[in-house]
Amino acid sequence: MTLSHRDETACRAVSDVLSRVGDKWTVLVVELLSDGPMRFSELRRLIGNISQKMLTTTLRGLERDGLVTRTVYPTIPPRVDYELTELGRGLREPVKALGDWARQNIGHINEARRKFDDEA
Amino acid sequence: MTLSHRDETACRAVSDVLSRVGDKWTVLVVELLSDGPMRFSELRRLIGNISQKMLTTTLRGLERDGLVTRTVYPTIPPRVDYELTELGRGLREPVKALGDWARQNIGHINEARRKFDDEA
Repeated sequence: MTLSHRDETACRAVSDVLSRVGDKWTVLVVELLSDGPMRFSELRRLIGNISQKMLTTTLRGLERDGLVTRTVYPTIPPRVDYELTELGRGLREPVKALGDWARQNIGHINEARRKFDDEA
Repeated sequence: MTLSHRDETACRAVSDVLSRVGDKWTVLVVELLSDGPMRFSELRRLIGNISQKMLTTTLRGLERDGLVTRTVYPTIPPRVDYELTELGRGLREPVKALGDWARQNIGHINEARRKFDDEA
């Protein structure tokens, strides 16, 4: 990337998008929805350590960005499915690459952190 | 990705790494350092809308994670260079993919947001 002064507006706009799609919950939700639609309750169970409020906020942000659709089925109780849009499906590959990198390198990162904290 | 109950600990650890490397400032700093070492002042000028405190925090986080080295040259005034480590260089490709996706799709995302806000 080359960033010049005239790119600053673009940079700010892209920062804004990155701050959304690079968010850890967003990365996990996009990875989980990569295989197909899921219910709210399934997403919550699979992520494990996310509050109902945080998952609602994450999904609403993804819906607003046009990356996810929300479908309510009029069953009793109502069933709510979330699914990646075409735009959202385009995010699967870069998000998977970032997730894979994190999983492969977590050992090195934890080791670096321990060393840094010991020296500090 | 398949997330089972026994993967939850790994998931939390990976979430923690993703929340760091997916941060918008981290993504921008890693992209800027992809071409070689840079001074603190250059990074700040090129990013444009980052405070000195936030850039310091971002770089210290990257240093702690073992992704960036900090070198002080005893000139007057002292020169401080930041450079990606081998581990950090491995992050260039996934970060570039995420940045490229964001730049290519920012128009669609902004359009989706306008539509969502109009309907809300």
